[in-house]
Formats: sequence, C-alpha cells, structure tokens
Amino acid sequence: MLATMLYGPGDIRFEEHDDPVIAEPADAIVRVIASCVCGSDLWPYRGVTPTPRPRTIGHECLGEVVEVGSAVRGFRPGDRVIVPFDHCDGTCPHCLAGAQSGCVNLGFTTSGQAELARVNQADGSLVAIPDGVPEDLVPSLLTLSDVMPTGWHAAVSAGVAPGATAVVVGDGAVGLCGVIAARVLGAERIIALSRNPRRQELARAFGATDVLPERGREAVAAVLELTDGIGADATLECVGMEDSVETAFAVARPGSRVGMVGVPNGVTAFPIGSAFDRNVGFAGGMAPVRKYLPELLPLVLDRAIEPGRVFDGEFALADVADAYRVMNERTVVKAFLRP
Amino acid sequence: MLATMLYGPGDIRFEEHDDPVIAEPADAIVRVIASCVCGSDLWPYRGVTPTPRPRTIGHECLGEVVEVGSAVRGFRPGDRVIVPFDHCDGTCPHCLAGAQSGCVNLGFTTSGQAELARVNQADGSLVAIPDGVPEDLVPSLLTLSDVMPTGWHAAVSAGVAPGATAVVVGDGAVGLCGVIAARVLGAERIIALSRNPRRQELARAFGATDVLPERGREAVAAVLELTDGIGADATLECVGMEDSVETAFAVARPGSRVGMVGVPNGVTAFPIGSAFDRNVGFAGGMAPVRKYLPELLPLVLDRAIEPGRVFDGEFALADVADAYRVMNERTVVKAFLRP
Repeated sequence: MLATMLYGPGDIRFEEHDDPVIAEPADAIVRVIASCVCGSDLWPYRGVTPTPRPRTIGHECLGEVVEVGSAVRGFRPGDRVIVPFDHCDGTCPHCLAGAQSGCVNLGFTTSGQAELARVNQADGSLVAIPDGVPEDLVPSLLTLSDVMPTGWHAAVSAGVAPGATAVVVGDGAVGLCGVIAARVLGAERIIALSRNPRRQELARAFGATDVLPERGREAVAAVLELTDGIGADATLECVGMEDSVETAFAVARPGSRVGMVGVPNGVTAFPIGSAFDRNVGFAGGMAPVRKYLPELLPLVLDRAIEPGRVFDGEFALADVADAYRVMNERTVVKAFLRP
Repeated sequence: MLATMLYGPGDIRFEEHDDPVIAEPADAIVRVIASCVCGSDLWPYRGVTPTPRPRTIGHECLGEVVEVGSAVRGFRPGDRVIVPFDHCDGTCPHCLAGAQSGCVNLGFTTSGQAELARVNQADGSLVAIPDGVPEDLVPSLLTLSDVMPTGWHAAVSAGVAPGATAVVVGDGAVGLCGVIAARVLGAERIIALSRNPRRQELARAFGATDVLPERGREAVAAVLELTDGIGADATLECVGMEDSVETAFAVARPGSRVGMVGVPNGVTAFPIGSAFDRNVGFAGGMAPVRKYLPELLPLVLDRAIEPGRVFDGEFALADVADAYRVMNERTVVKAFLRP
C-alpha cells in the first residue's frame, strides 16, 4: 500500500509500505476512505517526542472493511465504519465500567494516513456508518474517530451540566469540539480562550458566548471578571502545556473539576498544592472514543452538531507532507486528507 | 486565658495568653469543652512547616458559646456547639454551591487547644449540640470538628458508591474515619493499608474487610491481587506524602478517582502523566466540614458510627506537651485533651 511515513522531525514521506495483515482473530483491515492530521501528530513531527525509526503515522480515519479475523462477528467486508483511534474489546472489566481507553486489550490505529489500516478488537471498537449517508457528512463523521469524542470527554470529565458556565482552554480542533460538547451538555455560558480570528469565529459558531484573547494571568482575571469573581463551574483543558494547565486550574471555581484531554507535555509544575487548597479536582485522559459514539453519531447524522467544520484545509493523501506543514504553521485548524 | 503555644520545633508550652475577642460582628467566642491534637499539628511541631514566631495552636474543638458579635442570630451564650475547623459564612456563591472550604470569608480555629477560641462567621459555621447528649458521645462529637468530616470528604471525593471496592491509604485518624465513611456510603469491600496492630484493629472495627501491611509497589501488587487485577473503584488518599499519593494513583482502576484529603507535603513528583494515561482523576482538598455535619451529627447521636474510638490517649490540657510527644512518636492514634 501507499502510506504516510514519519522518518524524523519534519520528515514526512508518502511511499510504499507493507500492507497491514490480520495478526489476531479479533482484527480487521479497513481501506481508508477519509483521514486527517491530528494536533498530537505534530509532537513527533516537531521532534518533541522521538522517532527512533521510520514508521507509519495517523490514527484518525473512516474506513471500509476489507478483511476480518476469524473471531469477528459484527462486521464484514464492505461495511463502512468509524474507526476509534483507541481500540477496545468492549468486554473487559474496564470497558464494562465505561473506561474503554483503559481496556486490557487496548490497541491503536497506526496507519490512519495510508491506504489501509489495521483495527485490533474490531467488534469492540468499530461503529457502522448507516447506508446512504450524504457525502457532505463525511468530515463530521471523520471527527468521531478522535477529536469530537475527545472534546466530549473533556466536557463530561469537567462535569458540564445544564446552566453551567464552562471555560474552554485551547482553540485547536479538540478545544473547538469541546465548545460543541459544552453546548450540547447544556452549558449556558461558554467562555473560549482564543486569539486567532478564524478559530474565534468557529468557537462562536459552535456555541461560545464569550471569546477571550487573553492568556495566562490576564485570561484568569478576565474569566473572573466575567463570572463575578466566581470562576468556571466546569473547565476543559484541551492543550496539555504547563501554562494552559495552570490557567485551567486557576479559572476553575472552588469545588469544581478540570476535564483534561490535552496530553501532558512537559507539565512539571503541576499546581497540586493550589488545586488542593481550592478543592479543584481533575478528571480525564485519553478519551474512551467507543463509549461516546452511540450518543455522538446520531447528533452528526441529524446535523445537530457539525464538528466537521474544523476542517479548513483539504489535501490529497499524496500531498500529506503539505498538510503537516500547514498544520504545524497553524495556518489551518485541521487538515482533511482524501485517499 | 491559658493556651497551648507553639514556639518552634518540639517546643509546646501551656501558658497565659490574651483572650480572643469579638473582632467582627459575625464572630463568636467559645469556651473549649473538648479538644485534641491533629496529625497536621505535627507538621509545624516537627519543623516541616516554619513557625516564625510563637503562636497559639489547635483547630479541633467542641465549645460552649460565651459571647457573640452583634450580627450573630443563631447562637447565644450557653449554647454547646461543634466548631468546624474551617469557618464559612454559608451565604457566598462557593458555600451555596457546597464548597464551604472555599468560602470568600473563610476563617479557621486558631486556639482550639486553649480555654477560649474565636469563631469567625458563627452563624455559617457552628452546629448546636442537642441538650442532654450523653457524656460518652463527646469524643465522637469532637471528631466532627475535623477528622470525621475530612475522612468523609475523602470518600465522597473518591466517589465511593454502594457495592464499591474502596482502598484507604493512610491509617491515621483521618484514614480510619475514611474507612467509616466508605462503609456508610456502601462500599462492599474496604481495603485499608496499615502495618500498626492497634490501627489495623481499629480499621477492622470500623469496617475494613481487608488490611494490608504492604507499602509502595508491594501494596499496589497486593491490591491488584485482591481485586482480580482491576484495582480500586474509589481510592482515599489520607496522608499527602509523595509515596502515598503515588500508591493511591497506582491502585486506582482506570476511570476512577482518588479522593485526596492528605495535605500535600513535598509532593513534587505528582504522577500526572500516569494519571492521564489511565484516566484516573482526583478530587478533594480541605474538607467543607460544615457541609457534612447535617449528615454526620445524626449518625453520631444514633451511635451508627463511633469515630471517637480513634482517641486512645487522654491528657489534661495542661499536659498538652505530652500529648504532642506521644502523637509524634505514633504511640497513640489521636490524643484527646480535656480543659
């Protein structure tokens, strides 16, 4: 197959690679029908996380099943499916408790930006796309493999409830999906932190009632001013950097929670003392994507949410290196890839 | 009045000190009728936290109101009261949201181990002790000023629910009260970590179904073995040291929460990366004591819980230095002080 390969910092190539194969009876192979670049792909692209040897990359995709292992019961070749980036069996104690991202058989999509990808635990992970879905819904369906459920996980973990004031730290695709989630979960006031005009506009379109360009201490002061000194009922941390984590904890009102989905990168000075003093907790982590799809898929199919609007750049898979470049330069929010 | 004074590490004196006075209209002065030494008093006693100048000490007491400020409506001289260590107004947005320990008018008992103590925000903080309560209930009532609500806060913050497996890290008075709380909240299995025979016995008496003497990695392995590799549904962290926090996060199952009430002391290597990877959150902090008293006082009066059993040493207030010494040596769990 042709696949996107990461050779090292800034070195993305689209080239021949061995096809993935059924390695375990629960596996499936999908032909990728839509894919994209994730903000977290930029960590190895920038060299922040190492790439010891060339590897395939990409964990967000929609696919059509082309082959299934002998144990797979729920899917067969020809089925069009949403492929959660984290694969789970759906039957272990953690899955049954709703913590699918802690599945004892956890797996990941590792060649989502390629012609073919393997799915471990196909039955526990995949969700079928109904026949006859209009083509224009593909971008929103594609977000269901990662960013939309991840934003949703931030909002659920933060405890967004009807009438709440939610603060969303992070204006990437996940943060923007967090705005959507906060709105659907009933937040009355949604304060998004962003200083980028295009992202500010999307945040407003997705339901943000206030958009603040401030950062750090100025952002904290601005949120407190907007909330009569009280702070956020629920805070979504969608970045994972030291200053964003600090901002998130500082805007959270006493007794509230920060829903964290930004993968912690170099968060050394985690403000545990101040969190403790103010009874601000946290929850979150890698999103249990499969858990949320039964709720989120109907919202997309009914056009109640349009997370696909985060895609503002489209590239042929063969031009994937350009997609990485513009994502890295932040000139697009999120790059869509068509095979 | 006569008051316990801390002069510096290991230097406790019982001596004359100015009486506390009504400084604000919402204040009350109580005559202390029962008091005790808290594990957190040992931090300055040991010099772990500094004592720049001599000061009164003690934040846990029962009292009889002797004077009230002009704004106090709910109490008058002669009333016997439980004095939450953290005082709150009961009317600010944080109090109304159930985060009383984040009250905008937060105050603290600062001379609980003395003849007299001032209470800020008397109306919002104090809870009357009904007339005619038997004398033998005094120790359990005294625990309601701090350790019992703090153990309760750990269990509530950890999300202990009926049928849960709870792990309690810490066998001090707070941890032991956490065992009581986990039982009352319906935990089916309560695993307490303790290697001290007297504390093990109390943990069992309070409802622990399993008591493990292991620490650190061995404790984690033992908990996982007891729970079929799953871990705790709810974890109570009642110590606040780096190794205890690490143990608490490691025994927590994916998707669960650690309820933290041990004041973080030198927790530099907070395991946020591993917490994130496993979707283990935390909640907790300084307990909103007043919030829980309407639930806890009836349980004590009905003898449904007997947290007063944590007191295994009794001293005259004049001998308070001895009480600190035995607490510091861990030869008693908790020292009761009678004026």
